[in-house]
Amino acid sequence: MSSNSATSQGLQVLGIAGSLRQGSYNRALLQAAQELVPEGMGIGVFDLSPIPFYNYDVEQEGDPEPVTALKEAIGAADAILIATPEYQRGIPGVLKNALDWAARPPRQSVMRGKPAAIMGASPGFTGTARAQTQLRQTLEYNRTYALLQPEVLIGGAGDKFRDGRLVDEETRTRVRELLAALADWTRLLQQGVAART
Amino acid sequence: MSSNSATSQGLQVLGIAGSLRQGSYNRALLQAAQELVPEGMGIGVFDLSPIPFYNYDVEQEGDPEPVTALKEAIGAADAILIATPEYQRGIPGVLKNALDWAARPPRQSVMRGKPAAIMGASPGFTGTARAQTQLRQTLEYNRTYALLQPEVLIGGAGDKFRDGRLVDEETRTRVRELLAALADWTRLLQQGVAART
Amino acid sequence: MSSNSATSQGLQVLGIAGSLRQGSYNRALLQAAQELVPEGMGIGVFDLSPIPFYNYDVEQEGDPEPVTALKEAIGAADAILIATPEYQRGIPGVLKNALDWAARPPRQSVMRGKPAAIMGASPGFTGTARAQTQLRQTLEYNRTYALLQPEVLIGGAGDKFRDGRLVDEETRTRVRELLAALADWTRLLQQGVAART
Amino acid sequence: MSSNSATSQGLQVLGIAGSLRQGSYNRALLQAAQELVPEGMGIGVFDLSPIPFYNYDVEQEGDPEPVTALKEAIGAADAILIATPEYQRGIPGVLKNALDWAARPPRQSVMRGKPAAIMGASPGFTGTARAQTQLRQTLEYNRTYALLQPEVLIGGAGDKFRDGRLVDEETRTRVRELLAALADWTRLLQQGVAART
Repeated sequence: MSSNSATSQGLQVLGIAGSLRQGSYNRALLQAAQELVPEGMGIGVFDLSPIPFYNYDVEQEGDPEPVTALKEAIGAADAILIATPEYQRGIPGVLKNALDWAARPPRQSVMRGKPAAIMGASPGFTGTARAQTQLRQTLEYNRTYALLQPEVLIGGAGDKFRDGRLVDEETRTRVRELLAALADWTRLLQQGVAART
Repeated sequence: MSSNSATSQGLQVLGIAGSLRQGSYNRALLQAAQELVPEGMGIGVFDLSPIPFYNYDVEQEGDPEPVTALKEAIGAADAILIATPEYQRGIPGVLKNALDWAARPPRQSVMRGKPAAIMGASPGFTGTARAQTQLRQTLEYNRTYALLQPEVLIGGAGDKFRDGRLVDEETRTRVRELLAALADWTRLLQQGVAART
Repeated sequence: MSSNSATSQGLQVLGIAGSLRQGSYNRALLQAAQELVPEGMGIGVFDLSPIPFYNYDVEQEGDPEPVTALKEAIGAADAILIATPEYQRGIPGVLKNALDWAARPPRQSVMRGKPAAIMGASPGFTGTARAQTQLRQTLEYNRTYALLQPEVLIGGAGDKFRDGRLVDEETRTRVRELLAALADWTRLLQQGVAART
Repeated sequence: MSSNSATSQGLQVLGIAGSLRQGSYNRALLQAAQELVPEGMGIGVFDLSPIPFYNYDVEQEGDPEPVTALKEAIGAADAILIATPEYQRGIPGVLKNALDWAARPPRQSVMRGKPAAIMGASPGFTGTARAQTQLRQTLEYNRTYALLQPEVLIGGAGDKFRDGRLVDEETRTRVRELLAALADWTRLLQQGVAART
């Protein structure tokens, strides 16, 4: 990383939604983020559908192609942005499984030192608070630098999305704030690294 | 549930290992449990390999056959016994995904009120402590009555299993204690329910 | 415990609020619970103000009088009911400190096997979800049987309490349901224990 | 913060132990850290004994003197270093209570953006893993930048400390690594902030 590239060429963010459902609130949330990016940031989305279940025996024969693609996409991004549902008070198996692969050798280093931000939407009122707590624990282990604040906990999602689009203005503002904070955090870390070397 | 069946016919326990790896410590741990059962308890094992990723769109068309089989196996058991690895400080995606299906309608009631016990083995010294904490959160949500103690946190698994068999005597004793406590807990709950009705 | 006493003489519940503030929402929540008890249940309140900080050196000289009083009150109750605020995404130090004493020898057994229920109120919208998660972890360790559902997470407390009284009808109904479930859970456990012996 | 002061004048770290016991392993662990500091780092220790219980009513009348002293000590430090025991699978009430005060207005900003590191020692083999998980949740809320790795989880503390001194060489090396990583992390953050402004 060089501080030059960070300031002049913009930030490439990799978005990941933790649900396979087509009409998922969290897929829609990533789309909203794509609309709401600050200048100089771009968000691409990686679809988890083709990622198989983690299995050490399979891994020993070499990462399956979708896993390689995921690791490459993470490696190429300046930062990652995860939109997570909450399933039964925890992280969705689908999302955790992708992370179970992503930080494994070879190329586990793609998660290490990577800036990240978390958000989540759910029908209930706690807005994925408990799924996000579990997600943070895994990111910590992987030395992924998850942004601490603002929290984007979107409860009552049924009222805030319409026809697959985030329409609640207050929530849109909150997402904008998260993205601005992620840009700031990513640049702070990149410049800190650059100044050190 | 009737207290008669509990005391006279023995307890049928469904074992689930949270890893797909053939030589998994946690599969071996379930096998050890099968050897170490108290009199009157039997442990069958459900293999998670055929369970697909949870997807609401798929669920709307009806549970896939392996999911139906999982729900039926849970429904038919007196109690469940989960052996979990820890992946990146959390519950494995494979295991969480199975639970993401198991407590969903229709037939979400198979998890509700079901006695359960948790154990786990890992190479590191914390012995799946953090994976078990996350697993408990999901069981609580599903109203599954997870046994509180003893904890079976098997750290340093590399030294305690040999050729796919749990050989550490102290750990074998610990598993025996867990199973005895699970039998006791299951009967307490069954008799409490029976006395109430 | 005998199943007779449970059904004929009613249930004595010990209420504990995790805040020292006079106008605390959680003190008011306990008062609401006292109004909303089902027939046959009574709720007394133990004030944590006189409990000192846990210190092993002090404990070695014998439990301070307020700690003895807390342990005796827990020991004498059929069940405990904890109303917890959330401080900085976690359990309040005041409440955790009381539990740090309560389950220590001698007389640690007062927490063991005791039925319990949890509720909590906070100004934010997640309604103490994360404080309750931490509280459950400690109760599990102490073998205290915390009721799993319903959850009573009271967010937006500023609108639901007026002049120190819980006025939101939906929340009052929720508290009533919690207390009914606690009565049921306590009797189930008492009768399960009685049937076993 | 200026990157100059960071590199030329060294780092002042504030150490906090989460136990009041005189012979506490975690007090001894802080003393070990004082011996093992890298060149250019100094560690002062703040004793939590005089901090009262958090009470909003008291806070409204102005922070008690020991709380002011704690906030000033945090504010003056380049980074904080917390040594936590684990009580009943969670953060000690004593430690959580200090944090309950530290991030409150006025002067809540002392925790915000502050680099931090966590370590912990306990007699059991999980080495405070679960207390540290809870502690991280509170630091995240306060926007305190806790170092992610290495983890310093010291289990079996009874064998690793002698006469109040950390004597286990492997653990001493681990503490040294933690302090080096904290110095690096603190400078990275300071220089990132400096480069941005």
